[in-house]
Amino acid sequence: MDTVTLAHGSGGAATQKLIAEVFLRAFGNPYLKKMDDAAQVRVEKGAWAMTTDSFVVDPIFFPGGDIGKLAVCGTVNDLAACGAEPRYLTAGFILEEGLPVATLAKVAASLAAEARKQGVAVVAGDTKVVPRGKADKIFINTTGVGPIRKSLEAERIRSGDCILINGNIAEHGLAVFLAREKLSFKARIKSDCNSLWPIVKSLLQQSISLRFMRDPTRGGVNAALHEIASLSGLSVLLDEQALPASAACRTLADLLGLELLDMANEGKMLFFVAQQDAERCLRLLRRHPLGRRAALIGRVLKERKARVYLNTAVGGRKLLAPPRQESIPRIC
Amino acid sequence: MDTVTLAHGSGGAATQKLIAEVFLRAFGNPYLKKMDDAAQVRVEKGAWAMTTDSFVVDPIFFPGGDIGKLAVCGTVNDLAACGAEPRYLTAGFILEEGLPVATLAKVAASLAAEARKQGVAVVAGDTKVVPRGKADKIFINTTGVGPIRKSLEAERIRSGDCILINGNIAEHGLAVFLAREKLSFKARIKSDCNSLWPIVKSLLQQSISLRFMRDPTRGGVNAALHEIASLSGLSVLLDEQALPASAACRTLADLLGLELLDMANEGKMLFFVAQQDAERCLRLLRRHPLGRRAALIGRVLKERKARVYLNTAVGGRKLLAPPRQESIPRIC
Repeated sequence: MDTVTLAHGSGGAATQKLIAEVFLRAFGNPYLKKMDDAAQVRVEKGAWAMTTDSFVVDPIFFPGGDIGKLAVCGTVNDLAACGAEPRYLTAGFILEEGLPVATLAKVAASLAAEARKQGVAVVAGDTKVVPRGKADKIFINTTGVGPIRKSLEAERIRSGDCILINGNIAEHGLAVFLAREKLSFKARIKSDCNSLWPIVKSLLQQSISLRFMRDPTRGGVNAALHEIASLSGLSVLLDEQALPASAACRTLADLLGLELLDMANEGKMLFFVAQQDAERCLRLLRRHPLGRRAALIGRVLKERKARVYLNTAVGGRKLLAPPRQESIPRIC
Repeated sequence: MDTVTLAHGSGGAATQKLIAEVFLRAFGNPYLKKMDDAAQVRVEKGAWAMTTDSFVVDPIFFPGGDIGKLAVCGTVNDLAACGAEPRYLTAGFILEEGLPVATLAKVAASLAAEARKQGVAVVAGDTKVVPRGKADKIFINTTGVGPIRKSLEAERIRSGDCILINGNIAEHGLAVFLAREKLSFKARIKSDCNSLWPIVKSLLQQSISLRFMRDPTRGGVNAALHEIASLSGLSVLLDEQALPASAACRTLADLLGLELLDMANEGKMLFFVAQQDAERCLRLLRRHPLGRRAALIGRVLKERKARVYLNTAVGGRKLLAPPRQESIPRIC
């Protein structure tokens, strides 16, 4: 069993062997070991969050992570953004015929390790195999559910609220881009790929007046702020000088003519916080390993035009257009 | 917006437009309209089932269904097999650049229609686009959750139990095969693609001594019985003459040298029932629109060897080997 074959997707003996030798080995838990059509999970009464994400990142391994780790972080972060504790996860794999089984095993182990670290159980899975050339190596869908600890909605956002982020932007998008294009660039740029429930939880426990959160993934901080402005109806003002980014990322983006604000993040959250709690929130974020370089990057305006403005470094104020182009495709 | 472009997967303005014009139009419900990172759903305390399935069927439209309808039926049936009422569904789309938007809209409408018919809400979604040649038109993942109405486990199976099925086998596999190969075959074979929760529910309401259920999809009745034999530890005996199949399917399988028992079904369930309830169960199944041609096709033996035997039409008994080959790939 060196490479994945169509027989591994047939539902027969080869499928059973792949499940036993790769997936049960990686994820082995009482839910999966039952090999039922669906997992049986316990839930408490109340409001739960449910979210789904497919991952098609290219390359599947990149500095700071891989498609397996990313598939956990992406879904955990969507739950966290809704104030939900990640509890149960499913993983659906679409494999290209010819994929080395060792590569699949490595990805599955990485997915399993991140899930375990976050205390999330991978309770159900699925594997499909398509002929060579009909998919690109591995695609993974993860779907997650968990109880909502604090209900957050864009309608809660008020003018005057502060916008915080837990660290440097654009690292994931640029790291994947460098890895894909095999560019030699002196400074090593590592993806920020991380599960953010721990840092979100630490804020919720300190009863910060948190209004809303969103993780700025595809389309970066720019796309996320436009979505939030549109959902809340309010305009926001971003302070360009306050945006945290590493020197390496700034230089690379300049060289390539890419906008840092449009680049994907996979370990960042935008926090909308009531003004009176902003300083305390910033201190709490910076105390956490996932928020050392947290910053206050903007605020919500009175204007009800759902726009995003940028206070530029040279003292002007300009209207920011949402990202229109896929500057770097397949980053998640 | 005639075809899907990479920009539709960028997370920017084009993505928002695609979501609004295709997905919200098809699925529009209060969960999705919030456009949050995760949907907020209400759950009752207790045991719930959770299952995931990716769909890569080729072609995406076939007699009796399409990848959208199939994506609902497949996941609903996995929940139903575990005695769970389907409640919430997520849908993750991986699209190939160049796909006509009209095709996507048709698939989304079909998925939405089947979900609505089953009373299941599509609460969250995701769209990724990969460059031309990196996927094949459309792949869909659906993940479903719902409360378990009756807990069923393979360990409950006892020797003497009867095995029932709700109708003709092999229709899905053969219908997809004919559609893909564009074979001209006089008799029209239609996929049995259907959501089975309604017929399962009707049995649960009549307190039949149901031990276990499984839907025989990939690998057909053969693969499913081998899995169940392995889970329960008991051998089972299948009566070849009792297996319901249409004349068209029998002829086609003969012509092509395919085994009916290995062909996928997408609207069939195997029911393991206590002997004393078997006749009553059969009557109930036949009274339901999804079970007109239901049949008692086998029973569970005393032998603890986890084997599957076949009582052949000519009076012999032979050991049935599990399907080894992918006789027809990409049927779901």
